Amino acid sequence: MSNTKVLPLLDPAGQAAAPCCPPLTERPFSAQEAETAARMFKALGDPVRLRLFSLVASYEGGEACVCDISDVGVSQPTVSHHLKKLKDAGLLTSERRGTWVYYRVEPSVVAAMGRLLALRPAA
Amino acid sequence: MSNTKVLPLLDPAGQAAAPCCPPLTERPFSAQEAETAARMFKALGDPVRLRLFSLVASYEGGEACVCDISDVGVSQPTVSHHLKKLKDAGLLTSERRGTWVYYRVEPSVVAAMGRLLALRPAA
Repeated sequence: MSNTKVLPLLDPAGQAAAPCCPPLTERPFSAQEAETAARMFKALGDPVRLRLFSLVASYEGGEACVCDISDVGVSQPTVSHHLKKLKDAGLLTSERRGTWVYYRVEPSVVAAMGRLLALRPAA
Repeated sequence: MSNTKVLPLLDPAGQAAAPCCPPLTERPFSAQEAETAARMFKALGDPVRLRLFSLVASYEGGEACVCDISDVGVSQPTVSHHLKKLKDAGLLTSERRGTWVYYRVEPSVVAAMGRLLALRPAA
């Protein structure tokens, strides 16, 4: 089953399509905004997860199976563990097809993270 | 003393002005690229640090003194500790003037992080 609706950067009630937070340079984040956005950054704050994320994100067709991933220097259970963390953070979605689970980048969440880092023009 | 030259997203030898890594969607990251970039994301992967970062980034003049920061729910030594972590990750620079240390966002590093999250156009 696809779980493309798990988007932690969105409103927790799933009502709004707007991301949680303004650019980091716009105004101080509230505690709740910081909690939500920090979860995304933390998910990418591990070298193995970042390699896995870039591997899935750059894979042909934008989708990779756990079975496609072999050269990141960790065991397949560890790969699966980290992919699940990325999925829990809303950065990847997954779909089981037959034996394997396929992972795909969730573009709206990644785009929202990119917007957080948008800088103000120099004054 | 200003330390604007501490830019971990740059070549460790400080030779290149180019950021360390391509967009995450372009190709799988090498282990070394992932180590470098994960350090930045990890620094923002804590809610208190993220609030402090947005506070400094959005402060009038783009610069904030530790003395300006009082409403993030942690003690001033903890504020200083987290600001130092952001500085160590290359996201903030600091300058001591008289009694206080002033922090400023390092725009080139934040821009490089934003580029990492740039998405490919849909195929």
